[in-house]
Amino acid sequence: MVRTHGVCAPASPSAVAAHRLTPLPLTAVALDPSHELGAWQQVNREHTLPHVIEHLESTGVLDNLRRLEGAPEVPFRGPVFADSDLYKTLEAIAWEEARVPEERPWAAFARECVALLARVQRDDGYLGSAIQGRGGEPWQDMRWGHELYLLGHLIQAGVARERATGAGDLLRVARRFADLAVDALGPDSARTDAYGGHPEVETALVELFRHTGEHAYLRTAAAMLDRRGSGALGSGPFEPAYFQDHVAVRGAREATGHAVRQLYLAAGMADVAAETDDAGLRTALDALWTSAHGTKEHVTGGMGSRHRDESFGDPYELPPDRAYAETCASIASFQWNWRMLLATGASRHADAMERVLHNGIAAAVSVDGRRFFSVNPLQVRAGADGTAATSRRDWYACACCPPNLARLVSSLGAYAATGTERQVALHLFGAGTVRIGATTLAVATDYPWDGRVEVSTHGPLEELALRVPGWCRDATLEVDGAAAPAAPGADGYVRAPLAPGTHRIVLTLPMPVDVLDPHPRVDALRGTVALRRGPVVFCLEQADLPPGVPLEDIRIDLRAAPRPGPGVASLRAGATVLAEGVVRGVDGLPASTALPRSSRPPLASGMLPGRIALRAIPYARWANRAGGAMRVWIPVDEEVATP
Amino acid sequence: MVRTHGVCAPASPSAVAAHRLTPLPLTAVALDPSHELGAWQQVNREHTLPHVIEHLESTGVLDNLRRLEGAPEVPFRGPVFADSDLYKTLEAIAWEEARVPEERPWAAFARECVALLARVQRDDGYLGSAIQGRGGEPWQDMRWGHELYLLGHLIQAGVARERATGAGDLLRVARRFADLAVDALGPDSARTDAYGGHPEVETALVELFRHTGEHAYLRTAAAMLDRRGSGALGSGPFEPAYFQDHVAVRGAREATGHAVRQLYLAAGMADVAAETDDAGLRTALDALWTSAHGTKEHVTGGMGSRHRDESFGDPYELPPDRAYAETCASIASFQWNWRMLLATGASRHADAMERVLHNGIAAAVSVDGRRFFSVNPLQVRAGADGTAATSRRDWYACACCPPNLARLVSSLGAYAATGTERQVALHLFGAGTVRIGATTLAVATDYPWDGRVEVSTHGPLEELALRVPGWCRDATLEVDGAAAPAAPGADGYVRAPLAPGTHRIVLTLPMPVDVLDPHPRVDALRGTVALRRGPVVFCLEQADLPPGVPLEDIRIDLRAAPRPGPGVASLRAGATVLAEGVVRGVDGLPASTALPRSSRPPLASGMLPGRIALRAIPYARWANRAGGAMRVWIPVDEEVATP
Repeated sequence: MVRTHGVCAPASPSAVAAHRLTPLPLTAVALDPSHELGAWQQVNREHTLPHVIEHLESTGVLDNLRRLEGAPEVPFRGPVFADSDLYKTLEAIAWEEARVPEERPWAAFARECVALLARVQRDDGYLGSAIQGRGGEPWQDMRWGHELYLLGHLIQAGVARERATGAGDLLRVARRFADLAVDALGPDSARTDAYGGHPEVETALVELFRHTGEHAYLRTAAAMLDRRGSGALGSGPFEPAYFQDHVAVRGAREATGHAVRQLYLAAGMADVAAETDDAGLRTALDALWTSAHGTKEHVTGGMGSRHRDESFGDPYELPPDRAYAETCASIASFQWNWRMLLATGASRHADAMERVLHNGIAAAVSVDGRRFFSVNPLQVRAGADGTAATSRRDWYACACCPPNLARLVSSLGAYAATGTERQVALHLFGAGTVRIGATTLAVATDYPWDGRVEVSTHGPLEELALRVPGWCRDATLEVDGAAAPAAPGADGYVRAPLAPGTHRIVLTLPMPVDVLDPHPRVDALRGTVALRRGPVVFCLEQADLPPGVPLEDIRIDLRAAPRPGPGVASLRAGATVLAEGVVRGVDGLPASTALPRSSRPPLASGMLPGRIALRAIPYARWANRAGGAMRVWIPVDEEVATP
Repeated sequence: MVRTHGVCAPASPSAVAAHRLTPLPLTAVALDPSHELGAWQQVNREHTLPHVIEHLESTGVLDNLRRLEGAPEVPFRGPVFADSDLYKTLEAIAWEEARVPEERPWAAFARECVALLARVQRDDGYLGSAIQGRGGEPWQDMRWGHELYLLGHLIQAGVARERATGAGDLLRVARRFADLAVDALGPDSARTDAYGGHPEVETALVELFRHTGEHAYLRTAAAMLDRRGSGALGSGPFEPAYFQDHVAVRGAREATGHAVRQLYLAAGMADVAAETDDAGLRTALDALWTSAHGTKEHVTGGMGSRHRDESFGDPYELPPDRAYAETCASIASFQWNWRMLLATGASRHADAMERVLHNGIAAAVSVDGRRFFSVNPLQVRAGADGTAATSRRDWYACACCPPNLARLVSSLGAYAATGTERQVALHLFGAGTVRIGATTLAVATDYPWDGRVEVSTHGPLEELALRVPGWCRDATLEVDGAAAPAAPGADGYVRAPLAPGTHRIVLTLPMPVDVLDPHPRVDALRGTVALRRGPVVFCLEQADLPPGVPLEDIRIDLRAAPRPGPGVASLRAGATVLAEGVVRGVDGLPASTALPRSSRPPLASGMLPGRIALRAIPYARWANRAGGAMRVWIPVDEEVATP
C-alpha cells in the first residue's frame, strides 16, 4: 500500500480515505542543516539519537528483553512500558536510515535488537518483557498494563523500518503480536474492556492497515474506540476521565484527563474517521480540538496543567509555573494536528503544529541535544540561592519523552509539505528542498527568525499553496518578481497558479513583535503579557538580568514597543526581543502574602527602582545557560499600563 | 503534672519550660452556643462527632482492630494509618466529656474501644492493626509505615482521656507502646533512621512527658528531631524534602515539603524548644514561621499549594484554584501557632490561629456538620453544566481530616485565653465565660461578625490583656465607662490594669471591609483583590449571581467601597459584604488562550455588559447551597482600576 515513490510518510491516508491533503514521501523533503529545522535534525542525528541508544543499555531496557533468554534472575527495570523506549528508538533509526544514506553503527544495533525481539517473542506472538519476565498472562490489566501501548509503538517501529529500509523483520514481529491482539481483543472479542488504558495502539493499527491493506487492523482500532467510555477500565487512583473512559468517544466534547492519553486517542480517532468517513468521530474531534486549543493550550503549544495526574485541568486553568505540558503531549498534539490537517486542509492545524514545534517541543531538548525536559513549565522561580530547581536531565526514570523526540525530529521533513508534482502545499517553513516527481522546490528562508520565504520551483508544478500563519497580518506575495494577491483562502493558504517551468515565489510574512494578552478567563496570567515574534514565543531569563535584580521584580513597560533583536550565539543564534522594563523591589513590603490596599506602601520606594533594558530569548532556548528563574508571561507595570 | 485546676489544656508547658503564657484549664472557658464559636462547638458535638463515630464502623477502622482477635481472614481496610481515625475520635470524645457533663452513648463507645485496644495490643506493647494483621515486624518502614504517627495520636488520646475523665486505661495502652518505642528508637537507639516519615509523635511525646513527668519521652522526642535531616528515610516517590529529611531541623529556614508533615514537625520542635530552652530550635522555628506565613500562606490561613505531593510549593506560589490547603494542615498550623504563642506571647501567632480558624478550618465542614473538605481551594470554576465539581463529602478514603476537626473544635475553649486568676489574656474572641480561681469573666460579643467585645470581670483579677488583631486599625478601649489607652504593646496586646472587684471592659475593633491586594510576587493572583472584614475572608459564589451571569465574567469596581451587609440565614447567619461589579462577557473573543493585544476586541462589547450588585459570603460558608463556581480573589475591572 505504499502509494507514493520514496518512503511513505507517517499517517498517510489510504486511497479510499476521506482526506483533503496527501502527504509527500518522507524523503521528498530535505531540510538544510544550516538553518533552524535542518540544524535541529542534525543535532538529533549526531547527539540525541546516539544518546538515546546509549540509555537503552544503561537503563536496562535491553536487559529486560535479554533476560527472557534464560536469565530470569535479572530483575526487570523501569516502568512496565519500558520496551516502548526501544520501539520509538528503532522508529527514529529507521527514519534516519531513510533520510541520510550513510552507514552508521545504529544499523547493526537495530538489526540486533530486532533479532532479539524475534527470539524472545512468545510462540503465540505475545511480546512484552514485563509480563513475560514474570510469566504473567496477557491482557489481565487493561487499565495499567500498557500492553496495547507497547503493541502500538512496536507496530509504528515495524512499519517505519519496512518503509525506510525495506527490512520486514520487525514488522513480522509486530504483526504476529498484532494478530494475537486482534484475536483476543478485536471486533469479535466479547470483552467489554477490550481497549487499553493508554491509547496509542489505535493510530498504530490504522497505520498497519494502511501499510498492509489488512482490514482487521482497522476494524480492531475502530472497535477499541467504540468500546471506550463505558468505564470498564475501572478507576484508581484516578477517575475514568483520566483514561478518557468516562464518555463514548463520539460523545466527547471536552479534552480531559491525562493529556498524552487524550491526544494519542484523538490521533487514533482522526485516523479511523479518515479511513471510515465517520461523521460522528469528526464532530467529536472538532469539539475536542476547540476545547483543547481554545481553552487548554499554553501559549507555547504545550498542554496539560496538572502534575498530580498529568491532566488537562479545567478550561482556562493554565498556570505558567505548574504547567505540566509534557513533551510527549506536545508531540502527540503535533501528530493529532497533522492528521486533522490532512483531513481538513485547514491551516489552523498547521499553525498548531508550528506553534508547538517551535516552542513546546523545541524547548524539551537542550541546544546540545543531550538533555531533556519531560515537563515544560512557562515559569520557574529562583530558589533561595538564586538558581532554579528546574533543569533538563540526561534521562528520566519514565523516559517516554527523549526517544519520542528522536523519532519526531528524524521524520520532521514528512510534515513540511503535501501534494503531488503538480500541486504542492507548504505547511512548515524551513530552508531545504522538496522533490516530488519531476518537480523541484528550493526553499530559501531563515524562518522562524525571519519571515521571508523564497521558493524556487522547477518542473510541471501547476500550483504552489503557501500557508499564511494565523499570527501573520499583511503577508505579501511575489511571483516571478511581480506582486500577487496574498489574501489567503478560507483554508488559510495563499495559492500561486504556475505554468510548468521555473519560477520564483516569495512569501513575506512581516514579523513585528506581538504582545499577547492572556484570555480574560485565564486567572493565572492576569496582568501579564507574552512576547511572540512570528511563531516563536520568547521568555525572560535570569541570566540576562544584571546581578542583584531578581526576575520576580521585573515589570514590562509597554509604552515602548518591544522590538526584534539579534540572536545569541551560545543559544544557536536565533533571535531575541528587546523591551523596556521597570524594576519594582518588594523589600519594603510587610512579610505577608496579602496586603491591605489602603495601607500598602508604594512599590520600589527607594529600592532598585528605575528602568531596565530587557532581552527576551526564545522559550525554546531557555535553561541552556546558568540556572535561574525564567518566565514567558511578564507582568505589566501597573503604573504604566497601556492607555 | 496537671498543674492547674480542672482539665489541663493541650500543649500546656511544664513548670520548667521556657514560655511566656500559661494555658488555662480546658474547662475554664465555656463558649456560648448562641454565638459563632460556641455554635460551632454545638454542631460539632451534635452532628460531627456522632458522624465520625459512625464512620469508624462503616469504614472498617474498628474491624481492623477486631480482626486481631481471631478473625485474620477479615481484610484490612483503609490506609496504614487508619487506626489514627479512632485515636483522634477518642480524643474528641474525651474533650466533650470534660466540656459538657452529660451522659452520652459515646462514653460507653469509648470504654469499649479502649478495652478492644488493650486486648489486641501485643504483649510487648506494640499496637498497630495494619502491621499486626499481617504479622509484620515493627519499625521496618520508617518512611511510609506511619507507626510513630499512630503512636503519637494514641498518646494524645490517652492523655486527653485521663485528663478529661480520670480514666487511665487508654493512657496505659499508650505508655506501653510508647515505652516500646523509646526502647527501640529512643535516645539510645543505634538506628540512624529512628524517626518517622510523618512527624506527629514528637509533639505527642512531649505531651506525655508533660503529663507523666517521665523525661525519657522528652528525650526521645528531642532525639528524633536531632536525627532528622540526614536523608536516612530515603526517598521515593518523593524527595527527602517531602519528609523534611533534607536538612537538619536546626538548619531549616524554609517551610517545605508535605505541609501537614512540616507543620506537625514544627509543633513538635516548638514543644521540645520550650521544654529544653533550645535556642537553635527557636531560630529555626522563627525562620520557618516567616517562610510559611510570609511567603506560603493563602489568605484563608490554608497552607500547601501542590496536589501532587500535598506540599507547600515555592515562595509566593499560591494558586487559588489548585490551592491544596489541606484541612489537617490548617489544624496543624493552628496547633503550631498555639505553641509559638505560648512561647513568645506575640499576638501574630494568635492572629494566625484566628485567621485559619475562621477561614481555612471553618470552611472544611458544612453548616450541618456532616460534610467535609479535605482540600480547601480558594477558587472553583464551573463545569460545562454550570455546577462545580468540588463539594464536601461525607467521608474520605484517607479520612484524617474529619476526626481532626472534631478533636480541635471540642477543645476550642482551651485556646481562647491564658493566664491566672490575677492576670488573664484573651486571644480568641467569642461569647462565653472564663472562670479561673475566684475570677470570672463574662464575654459578650458577636465576634467575628461584629468587633465589639465586652468583658465583665469579677474577682481578684489585676490585669486583663486583650489582643488587638493585626488586621485592626483604630481599636478603642473603655474601662468602666471611661476611655482608656488602646494602643497595643509590642506583643500586640492592650492591657487594662484592674483593681479587685467588678469591671466592665469594652474593646471595640472597627470592622470596615478591607480590600486586600496579593503580594506583588504572587503571580497567580495578580490583578485581583480579596475582601476581608475583621478576621473573616469573603468569597463570591455563583449562587448569588443572576442566572446566565457566570462568575468567571465578574469584575469588581473598586470606585465604590465594599461595605458590610446582613447575614444569610441559611448559612448560619454571619455577615456578608456588598460591592459593585461589572460583567465582562467574553463571547466575542477568538477561541484562543492568548490574544494579540493589538487586535483584541474590547470586552463586553454588546454581551452582558453593565453593572451588577455583588454579595460576598464568608469563605467559611461556601458550598452550602447549590453547587457552582466560587472565588475568593476577585479580578479588578481594568477600566476602572483604582486611581
